Formats: sequence, structure tokens, C-alpha cells
Amino acid sequence: MTPDEARARFRSGVKEPTAGWSAGWTQANLIALPRDLAYEFLLFAQRNPKPCPVLDVTEPGATSSPLFSGDLRTDLPGYRIYEHGELVAEVDDVTDLWREDLVAFLVGCSFTFEAALLEAGVPVRHHEAGSNVPMYSTSVECRPAGSLSGPLVVSMRPVPAGQVADAVRVTSRYPAVHGAPVHVGDPAALGIRDLDAPDFGDPVEVRSGEVPVFWACGVTPQAAVMRSRPPFAIGHAPGHMAITDARDSDYLVP
Amino acid sequence: MTPDEARARFRSGVKEPTAGWSAGWTQANLIALPRDLAYEFLLFAQRNPKPCPVLDVTEPGATSSPLFSGDLRTDLPGYRIYEHGELVAEVDDVTDLWREDLVAFLVGCSFTFEAALLEAGVPVRHHEAGSNVPMYSTSVECRPAGSLSGPLVVSMRPVPAGQVADAVRVTSRYPAVHGAPVHVGDPAALGIRDLDAPDFGDPVEVRSGEVPVFWACGVTPQAAVMRSRPPFAIGHAPGHMAITDARDSDYLVP
Repeated sequence: MTPDEARARFRSGVKEPTAGWSAGWTQANLIALPRDLAYEFLLFAQRNPKPCPVLDVTEPGATSSPLFSGDLRTDLPGYRIYEHGELVAEVDDVTDLWREDLVAFLVGCSFTFEAALLEAGVPVRHHEAGSNVPMYSTSVECRPAGSLSGPLVVSMRPVPAGQVADAVRVTSRYPAVHGAPVHVGDPAALGIRDLDAPDFGDPVEVRSGEVPVFWACGVTPQAAVMRSRPPFAIGHAPGHMAITDARDSDYLVP
Repeated sequence: MTPDEARARFRSGVKEPTAGWSAGWTQANLIALPRDLAYEFLLFAQRNPKPCPVLDVTEPGATSSPLFSGDLRTDLPGYRIYEHGELVAEVDDVTDLWREDLVAFLVGCSFTFEAALLEAGVPVRHHEAGSNVPMYSTSVECRPAGSLSGPLVVSMRPVPAGQVADAVRVTSRYPAVHGAPVHVGDPAALGIRDLDAPDFGDPVEVRSGEVPVFWACGVTPQAAVMRSRPPFAIGHAPGHMAITDARDSDYLVP
């Protein structure tokens, strides 16, 4: 399915996680903030490039960008609305909420390298299960910028111990979409108490002989919004990404 | 010479290009702008990552940063002062000009990969000549951001034809400090009429059998200042860089 076709489905009401959709096309996280917070967010991203690799930034009030020719207000399968850091609604259309001063940031997503993992023979459990990827807020603090601070959020994929090195090698070739894992193995070291209770997305089974592998996650900006309480923000519903017009291969380094 | 020692020399009045200084320590371009232009500049950098890889950003009015423990007002060998886009002075101390609202951006510099070029047996002519690297404004436009627009600036190193591939391979491993060349060969295609008349720095000899190889250059922000005419800006004197506390190897990708 092309990005255009996928976006049309979401526009017409389909709501499901986008992992595995439009194979080969890059997916992105969304965070939209008032213009007067745009510098602080871009600085936060510069200081935390692993969780916040910025792929594109819109002009204030714009509803598309060079990277995303669809309509940012309707063409994602789901959105989260924040007021003063509180999640006040999850909706599938934000047309009425898209203010003239909103700047939208598209942030790289690890779904981008999942096709490469599969090609290398590394299983991706949430694909097999048809569920959303599990994501966790961690005890690792991002480097703050102005009023913005918050914890690192990670996504987790269970990887057979003998394929962890492959998973590292493959994903490190995609630095613009979170790149290599930030952590391999011990959830407690990230402050994660229970893998079966992710903060976002769905739990997945970690089988005997598998190791939980953690990648930086583009939900981190939303965790910063929840902590830092800006008056208004719109994010994507975690796992329900913007499917862009860029190719995964655009972000592959040699 | 350690970064501290080099910075002390510059603070005490030494003014010379920094190519070859403090081998192994990362050098950086400086552009300092009023806070109300900081977002536009950071966006300009996000949209033009080859010439403007941002390594660090100071708090407004700050004179050092995590990456640069020296004093940004005194510890570079030279500075250029711009008012409304006009170069009004080149000085070696900007203490009296460092306003409370100035945000300083440290931008990656290709001097960082010159040690790696030498190690790979690729000659670096401006080292041999003891001169500054030649830099050229090109006919290639950067992608604008708000009020900021300007041409791509490049640095040039003559490389023996048989070693061009090595030069590409080695420098592509340093994406955060301009990475692979943007252009190999034909200066006219970049709108450069005369290699012997660089816009910044000194000309170098291109010998028979050598090809001019062009890398994106961190003087690009100053070219944008000259074009876009913000009220006030401070840049480094081209080739006279900030020697940071980071190691070149910090920017090497596998």
C-alpha cells in the first residue's frame, strides 16, 4: 500500500497501529506545539537525538510538509490531545484543533527499521501478534531544554539471544530513526518494573531464550509534554504513526 | 596540545588558522545570534544538516557549554562581527559584544576528519602549505527557514584522482562534521569561477592529476547572515575554529 493509499484509509476512519503498513516507506512520530515553544522543542531534540531525531518541521499552521504530502490533521490513524500536560482526548481527526500557531515536528520512528530486521531474520513479535509495540517510560532522564524535560521512552522487541548482535548491527545503520538499541537485557536498569505493563502500546511475550532489547522511542516528546505541561500539544496515538513520502532507504547509512 | 592549552594561546593573542591544532580534538564553527532568531537558525540547521551539523547550543548569554569549557568570548583565535549582514569588524576578543540574549551555536567542522584523511594517506594541501583551507560560496541554495536563507559554502581539498574514493570513504564516516563530499570535480557546477580566488581562507595549489573535492562548510551560517541581514551576529573568523572538549572519535560512526 502506498503512503497515499494508507493515509486515505486512516482519513476514512481506519484506526490501527501502523507497524508493517506501507513496507519500505518511512513512518514518523508527530508532536505539534505552539510556535512559542518550537525553539525549546527543537533544542530538546538537538540535545536528545536518539529519542528525538527530527525528520521535518512544518511552517506554523501548515498541515503538510515536504516529507508528508497528506493532511497532518486527518491522515494519521489516531491523535492524542494534551492540555497543560494532561491527556484530555484521543481522537482520529484534529481538524478543529489545528491552530494557526501550531508547529508540527515529524520525528523518526523505529518501525522504519523493522523491515530490515525481518530481512535479517530477526523476528518482530508485535508483527507476529498483530499488536502494537510495547513502549515504556524509563528512569533515564533526557537532557532538558528550557521548560522541557522528561524521561526517555523506549520501545521493546524480544530478540533471541543469538540474534541480538544482528539486531544491533542492522538498526545501527538507521541512526536517523533511533538507530542502535539504547539498552539490551535488564529492564530494571531502565526502571521498568513489569514488561507486561507497558506505558504505551500492548505487551508482547518474551519467550525462553529471548532477551528484551530496548530502542529509543519517538513517544519521548509526549512524555516531555506530560511532565512539562505546556498549554497545548497534539501528538500521534502511540504506535499510530504518520506514514511519510520518504523511503526507509533514505535513512540507511552505508 | 590539549584544548585547554590551545585556548589559552588564543586567549593570549595568538591568531592563526586552527587546522592541525590539537589533533584528535573536535573543532567547531561558531555562530551567535540573538535569542529571537535562535529558532530560525536551529530550523535552518535542521533543514541543511550537511553544512550546519549542530554539535551544541548555549543558554542565552552563556559563555561556555558542555562541549566547550573555555570562554567563547576569548578562546577562539578570531571572530567576525556582523551588523545587519555587514561584516563590520574582525577581532580576537568579543567580551564587550557578548550580549545577554546571545545564543551560540557550535557547528561541526571538517577539520575534524583531516587527521583521518592523513592516516588514510590522503594528503591535505593546506596542512602542507601552512595556510588556511580555501572556502567558496556556491550557486547552490540552502533550504530557507523563516528569514534565513543563503548559499551553501564549501571547503576544498585537492585529492589525487586515485585517492578520491578513499577520501569519500573516510569522511563519510564522520556525518556530524559534514561527512562525505557534496561535490567532486567540476567547480563550475557549483558556480565557482576561480579556484584561486576563494571567498574565505587561502588558495591552494591543485596539481596535475589532482581533483578538487568539495565538502559542505560551517561558514554557511555566516553566508546566511550576510544574505539575511539579522541586526547582529558573531561568527568565528573562517578557519579559526573553536577547539572543543570532544574527541574526533565521538563523531565517528562504525
